[in-house]
Amino acid sequence: MIYFDNSATTKPYKEAIDSFVKVSTSYFGNPSSLHGFGEKAERLLKQAREQMANLLGVKSNEIYFTSGGTEANNMAIKGTALMHRSRGRHIITTKIEHPSVKETMDQLQEAGFEISYLPVDAAGIIDISILEKEIRDDTILVSVMHVNNETGSIQPIEQIGHLLKYYPKILFHVDHVQGIGKVPLDFYKSHIDFCSISGHKFHGLKGTGALFIHEGVDIAPLLSGGNQEKKKRSGTENTAGIVAMAKALRLTMSEMNNKLEQLMKIKTYLLNELSVIEEVMIHTPEHKSAPHIINFSLKGFKAEVFVHALEELDIYISTTSACSSKHSSASETLMAMGVTEMTAKSAVRVSLSYENTIDEARYFIESVKKTIAQLRKVMKA
Amino acid sequence: MIYFDNSATTKPYKEAIDSFVKVSTSYFGNPSSLHGFGEKAERLLKQAREQMANLLGVKSNEIYFTSGGTEANNMAIKGTALMHRSRGRHIITTKIEHPSVKETMDQLQEAGFEISYLPVDAAGIIDISILEKEIRDDTILVSVMHVNNETGSIQPIEQIGHLLKYYPKILFHVDHVQGIGKVPLDFYKSHIDFCSISGHKFHGLKGTGALFIHEGVDIAPLLSGGNQEKKKRSGTENTAGIVAMAKALRLTMSEMNNKLEQLMKIKTYLLNELSVIEEVMIHTPEHKSAPHIINFSLKGFKAEVFVHALEELDIYISTTSACSSKHSSASETLMAMGVTEMTAKSAVRVSLSYENTIDEARYFIESVKKTIAQLRKVMKA
Ligand SMILES: Cc1ncc(COP(=O)(O)O)c(C=O)c1O
Ligand SMILES: Cc1ncc(COP(=O)(O)O)c(C=O)c1O
Repeated sequence: MIYFDNSATTKPYKEAIDSFVKVSTSYFGNPSSLHGFGEKAERLLKQAREQMANLLGVKSNEIYFTSGGTEANNMAIKGTALMHRSRGRHIITTKIEHPSVKETMDQLQEAGFEISYLPVDAAGIIDISILEKEIRDDTILVSVMHVNNETGSIQPIEQIGHLLKYYPKILFHVDHVQGIGKVPLDFYKSHIDFCSISGHKFHGLKGTGALFIHEGVDIAPLLSGGNQEKKKRSGTENTAGIVAMAKALRLTMSEMNNKLEQLMKIKTYLLNELSVIEEVMIHTPEHKSAPHIINFSLKGFKAEVFVHALEELDIYISTTSACSSKHSSASETLMAMGVTEMTAKSAVRVSLSYENTIDEARYFIESVKKTIAQLRKVMKA
Repeated sequence: MIYFDNSATTKPYKEAIDSFVKVSTSYFGNPSSLHGFGEKAERLLKQAREQMANLLGVKSNEIYFTSGGTEANNMAIKGTALMHRSRGRHIITTKIEHPSVKETMDQLQEAGFEISYLPVDAAGIIDISILEKEIRDDTILVSVMHVNNETGSIQPIEQIGHLLKYYPKILFHVDHVQGIGKVPLDFYKSHIDFCSISGHKFHGLKGTGALFIHEGVDIAPLLSGGNQEKKKRSGTENTAGIVAMAKALRLTMSEMNNKLEQLMKIKTYLLNELSVIEEVMIHTPEHKSAPHIINFSLKGFKAEVFVHALEELDIYISTTSACSSKHSSASETLMAMGVTEMTAKSAVRVSLSYENTIDEARYFIESVKKTIAQLRKVMKA
């Protein structure tokens, strides 16, 4: 099996699963319980929080555990909207956000907020000067993703942060779900107020995630209740999942240190080989893109057909993003980059992890060529 | 170890952990992915949904997976408020709800909703006629828990449902987190629109839960995004956790069939033995209470001191609920039942599971007596 769908989800590290089992079996107490058996669980939670904070280069009181990236995004955006709606009702985001940001904005719009959507250029990158022009007195939040989940294009987060430094009342949210462990990001240097990550995108377990909230920044809670996570996110903590996520983050970060170059080589190899195939049109920009995502169209072929044909060869890739893969509508992200609807409908995504090898990439390229030839024959027949 | 804190959280079944590991290892695909590896995960999700629906006696399209009981409660209540706020802004609940309901109501009150809190009698039970009097033209929701997490008292859910049948515009939410697997509840017969459960309370894994939403009832989503769970709850599904929860529910339901009588015997034994101890004042009503929760005060002793003293004997019980156990304020539930603040501050909770035995109960009673005698000595010295 060649698994090239790592932006949809990753294979959990064995070590992460082992940690999960250990904690679920031997430390299943409720961290809120007064007795020592609960305290043991609380200590594990504290350690995981510290470990993650260290790895992310922030303070442990700035880490809030969630059920995943979707919750982290909703929590930051809705929590800010609810908290600061008396101060202003204008939010700036981009045209290429993940649905967990996009749909949240739609909901806020219905509730009376005004949303400005920044356009992107052909490489899928926003223009800082356009962002600056959109800023108003009643702007309360700017939400821009780090790495796009469909194309891998990287937004200039640090530059945005530097601009927003001059607008201290505007909070800055970054969806870092696809960037973590692949494209370094300094939360403090980028003046980020909220940053979302999701455990299952870096070989942790599904149902775990975290939101970084800069010290001193407040939000209205999305999940109210027993006042866990300093009242910002109630609900009995998934201690085992959190410990597993901290472990996965440590392993991913060390892989980034050791294997980033290898990953970039595989990506360059794929880009080079794909670019000489006549039917291929590459959408992922050569520069300013993440090392693990390649998006390209196969002119004349429907994306679904191609995905299924590769599956016959035990190769797993994706149409656009997993979330929208079952709707046949064309990718909004690609269309925002100026790609035609027809071309967008033939777009597929290859997404790598540090576990993938150059041999897999070679086999993939051969298979793409073979599949194109075969599909052509069928179509002519 | 004698673990008598099962209302805080339970020890996961080995079978549930095994399922989790199996799915995380071999079926880690994203259920939303187009390819067959994603489809395998989607099939597991579908099976788990059907299994849970069968066990709960409802349709599988009425089950929505969440990250736990807190999210299920927030989702039902806030989702209804947001959806129906143009129709009315009045909600009825009780004075003894879990914080995940209580705090949600507080947030809605701040947002302009009016909340009526029903009183309870000395047994902790509401009066249906008072509920009826509180109903207004602008009432959109009634939220009443099934089994109270501190005292075990059971609300007359079916009767409430029968009353609300005559008010078709009022939705009915039931927090069934403590009732599931212990006190049977017919969702349809009780005319319930929303019903919350939480995996870790019935030997499933933390970070899993579900909300039953009656067919045809709509809510505004709390977590927006990739449109999982029929747009009502977005976020990549925790397939492994969900499969484990379905397995745990099956095992719990079969334990309820086989061991409910045994559990009731243990409870009766404990009540009888405790009632003859001079310092003990039992708060859990003899009738209309769940088989697994006993709440009592130890007159003259602080609850914390007693919990820690029993811990020395490797017995784990709780002060009031886990959620509030680290705040030393007296239980609002007990005070709503007419218990004085002083007595409430000496209240402890014993909560059982089907794994507990009569021998453990005997050892517990001996230990309570011994501990009282010892603490008395210390206090006199
Ligand atoms: C960029 C981005 N943001 C947010 C999410 C949502 O994260 P999760 O799947 O943990 O809900 C995803 C993945 O689905 C993503 O790719
Ligand atoms: C009655 C009741 N409702 C809701 C909850 C919250 O569930 P969870 O811990 O899964 O968030 C609990 C337990 O904490 C509870 O006892």
